[in-house]
Amino acid sequence: MFLYIFDLLGTAIFAVSGVSMAFRLKMDAVGVLVLASVVAIGGGTIRDLILDAPVFWLTDNNYIWIVVATCALMIAFIKKPTRIPWYVLPVSDAVGLAVFTVIGAEKALHYGFSPTVAVLMGTLTGCGGGAIRDVLAGQIPFIFQKEIYASACIIGGSVYCLLDYSHLPRVINILVAAGVVLAIRLTAIKWQLSLPTFSK
Amino acid sequence: MFLYIFDLLGTAIFAVSGVSMAFRLKMDAVGVLVLASVVAIGGGTIRDLILDAPVFWLTDNNYIWIVVATCALMIAFIKKPTRIPWYVLPVSDAVGLAVFTVIGAEKALHYGFSPTVAVLMGTLTGCGGGAIRDVLAGQIPFIFQKEIYASACIIGGSVYCLLDYSHLPRVINILVAAGVVLAIRLTAIKWQLSLPTFSK
Amino acid sequence: MFLYIFDLLGTAIFAVSGVSMAFRLKMDAVGVLVLASVVAIGGGTIRDLILDAPVFWLTDNNYIWIVVATCALMIAFIKKPTRIPWYVLPVSDAVGLAVFTVIGAEKALHYGFSPTVAVLMGTLTGCGGGAIRDVLAGQIPFIFQKEIYASACIIGGSVYCLLDYSHLPRVINILVAAGVVLAIRLTAIKWQLSLPTFSK
Repeated sequence: MFLYIFDLLGTAIFAVSGVSMAFRLKMDAVGVLVLASVVAIGGGTIRDLILDAPVFWLTDNNYIWIVVATCALMIAFIKKPTRIPWYVLPVSDAVGLAVFTVIGAEKALHYGFSPTVAVLMGTLTGCGGGAIRDVLAGQIPFIFQKEIYASACIIGGSVYCLLDYSHLPRVINILVAAGVVLAIRLTAIKWQLSLPTFSK
Repeated sequence: MFLYIFDLLGTAIFAVSGVSMAFRLKMDAVGVLVLASVVAIGGGTIRDLILDAPVFWLTDNNYIWIVVATCALMIAFIKKPTRIPWYVLPVSDAVGLAVFTVIGAEKALHYGFSPTVAVLMGTLTGCGGGAIRDVLAGQIPFIFQKEIYASACIIGGSVYCLLDYSHLPRVINILVAAGVVLAIRLTAIKWQLSLPTFSK
Repeated sequence: MFLYIFDLLGTAIFAVSGVSMAFRLKMDAVGVLVLASVVAIGGGTIRDLILDAPVFWLTDNNYIWIVVATCALMIAFIKKPTRIPWYVLPVSDAVGLAVFTVIGAEKALHYGFSPTVAVLMGTLTGCGGGAIRDVLAGQIPFIFQKEIYASACIIGGSVYCLLDYSHLPRVINILVAAGVVLAIRLTAIKWQLSLPTFSK
């Protein structure tokens, strides 16, 4: 139940990130909807296909409706998209990333796969939607150009897998691991931290 | 039976749209084949993966051969690709869009999913192949830059779901819903209609 | 057993091609890892999803670890990425292409699908990972712009399907078909052979 609300929240927040990007690219209402859907449910869809789990939004349409509602609310209440402060996109993205990383890792463990797969699925759930969004928008994905990004997912996913061996309540594990991802991302955004690259 | 022929027809027509794009980008024969395949079977493939249905062209190879035949015919008979009139690409695209939207929605309902999912699957089947084609060709997908496009699928898919409650023969439902998509798209192409965007 | 080692080898080699591309694009360690993973396991993942086979690296994590090890080794031992000779990327790509084409075709036949599907799956396994790599890197995929590429897969896959009717040991079939793909690609690279395009 807690995980479910947490998941719907992540979906809404990732949809916000999709809508912000669509506004920035001056798309119409349907473009907004498509981009928001891709960010919000794209990563989890690929995860479920790979895990051979039923795709999560097929039987529970709440995920779809929360994306539609987020788009409608943002279109209705934001008269001037350019007035969205610059940090809305990266911060909402960071929160969504934290939530989805943990949910992805949790689902893989729940289906009986190894921690290695769980870390990978966490990263995929977190970064997948955003990567498809960027590719559709004609940009090189976030994960390749931004400050510490996918690495936050890898660390957060690993933390969750470690905590999973503990006897703590799962809610604690989820919040701690999501907190780790969020803290890393926000720190990276604030001080523009990047990993060293291999140029020359 | 009717639906099957309708589907093969849509496949051939979408392949035409892929070939036209490949000609325009001066690709070789294999590029033509790959791009035609992606447009013609890409959207339906993603749909089947998500619905967890057997991918439609795995057991019935006619879909593959009709794409190959379309490519071979177009390569053989069109000496000067640049002579393809400009409207062939958008109009063939519109017909394919209409056919595939209805087939996608029909399949989702047939598998017992909600109308919400059916509208989504119709849009995905219709727009998915073209979106992958555009991404592979290094362009921002049609759906984000063209006149009313994905919206035609959303409306057509909704019409099909509504008609599905009626007691009309399914052939009628299919033709009406496909006609709606086609009419919207052709009108939009002719008068270059677009939805309002959210620029400034 | 032979096929398994062959497959792990192809994975490592394709990872090298992903790492080389990531170095060239001046990515950080995680970018290197993501791009290497996409090239090395992307094509096979899509193949398994379409064939409805369990995704190969879910239960056997060796594939993931070999990608991680390849990345670590290349990062550790290559001080100046720009010193990687130009031919490392195309040649490692050609070897990976040969291995994966045969493995993709073999798996499709093993699952009881037609030679048509097998040729397609061989091409997809061989070219899929590289195509996703190029799209993520913001480039038009190799298959559309390079010398004879996907055609090598189509021919190699067809050769494998033909050999499959023979009573030769499977190891021979695999090596011959992979040799055909490799020979075509290396010849094409060396003399920059291309198929004719349909420009004007």
